[in-house]
Amino acid sequence: MSDLRDVHAFLFDVFGTVVDWHGSVTRELEDTAKIHGIEGNWGEFAKTWRRGYLENTRKVAQGGGGPLSVDVMHRKILDDMLRSGEWKAFGDALNPNARAHLNLAWHRLSGWPDSIEGLCALKKQAIIATLSNGNIRLLMDMAKHADLPWDAVFSSELFGSFKPNPKVYLGAAKHLSLEPHNCAMVAAHIYDLRAAAGVGMRTVYVRRTGEEATDVEVKPKSEGGEVDVVVYSFTELAAFLTNRK
Amino acid sequence: MSDLRDVHAFLFDVFGTVVDWHGSVTRELEDTAKIHGIEGNWGEFAKTWRRGYLENTRKVAQGGGGPLSVDVMHRKILDDMLRSGEWKAFGDALNPNARAHLNLAWHRLSGWPDSIEGLCALKKQAIIATLSNGNIRLLMDMAKHADLPWDAVFSSELFGSFKPNPKVYLGAAKHLSLEPHNCAMVAAHIYDLRAAAGVGMRTVYVRRTGEEATDVEVKPKSEGGEVDVVVYSFTELAAFLTNRK
Repeated sequence: MSDLRDVHAFLFDVFGTVVDWHGSVTRELEDTAKIHGIEGNWGEFAKTWRRGYLENTRKVAQGGGGPLSVDVMHRKILDDMLRSGEWKAFGDALNPNARAHLNLAWHRLSGWPDSIEGLCALKKQAIIATLSNGNIRLLMDMAKHADLPWDAVFSSELFGSFKPNPKVYLGAAKHLSLEPHNCAMVAAHIYDLRAAAGVGMRTVYVRRTGEEATDVEVKPKSEGGEVDVVVYSFTELAAFLTNRK
Repeated sequence: MSDLRDVHAFLFDVFGTVVDWHGSVTRELEDTAKIHGIEGNWGEFAKTWRRGYLENTRKVAQGGGGPLSVDVMHRKILDDMLRSGEWKAFGDALNPNARAHLNLAWHRLSGWPDSIEGLCALKKQAIIATLSNGNIRLLMDMAKHADLPWDAVFSSELFGSFKPNPKVYLGAAKHLSLEPHNCAMVAAHIYDLRAAAGVGMRTVYVRRTGEEATDVEVKPKSEGGEVDVVVYSFTELAAFLTNRK
């Protein structure tokens, strides 16, 4: 297991890695639908909404066009979903104010059970910052909502693309005044860590149930795998860093 | 007195407004000089160093050339000061490592006595973020050193110029997803507030001893002056916001 001794800053993916987007958004959808007496599989609705976001950000990361603000992107996907078909009745029930409020459900996501304790412990040992495709205001609101103690909030918005475009990772390292190998990317998605490793960053994989689209078994280099460290929680990562000394 | 009711985010100048640069840097200079047995007026040294920074950032803000990283700028000014004349003996005593360490004195500034308590109280009521000419790494290190609980760290570095260039203020508002009139700039320097007001932001003047280059008497609009609010501390500002409700 790598000791990450030269890592001065940990950069965190946020959706799915730090916060439970699926549980939080599903709960908001259920509450909203209940008010209007509309039934549906809201866990599936949340997944479809999220899938639209993943497709759109991937397109921009590869050089294609599209909104750079995730707030704008989330709203467009929501409006498209509500226009016709399965969710039309829900769409008819939601006026513009209700849609604007629902769209900000992505600002009100809750952390995983270990997130706050783990981040507070890590913050004593290194710089901790977001490196998310979410826009800055979204990440700030979420930090206030979920008590996340970031030293800085970095968003792909600052660098004119989305992860996994290399310029997002390099931009964060530059503003930290660090070489990439002095930074570690922390994520529950292997595509994110592959891109970080591609520019020379160290990698920490966090296993979060349901976050990988397909069944992947990610292993540390010490076991023949491709990432530096694999953990089940941020508290485990903090304990690992304490023990390296 | 304006009630700042529509302000959702407070943007803070940092050097002199949040932290006591003169006291902190003078103490580091005194400690360093003592090790080498060199005497001098270290309060004056600190002021000359700071003046070089102000001249350089002003030049860039007006469209001229120069480094966009304050770390690089501080080091260049330091090396120039140590090359000859009054401070040459001090320069001869400092090897490159010692100079690099001394240059980071600007990352280790202490807050004014009311800074932490005031910012913690303000953070419960609104977004609080830096808007400084200091580079991001400097602002992050300082926040860790002085326990400053920022929601986000904005630096002019992100916007390709320095304050008082309007694009710095407009860039911060954009990333906050706010109109300028929903933001307030907080500073101990009237030139900074005049530029913020120029793009439509609200303004809070904090009186900090020794921070204005010339004798200015800044008054609130309610007394015929040019800023929205004048306070003596962040705790006073937090109490004012609590009472507006």
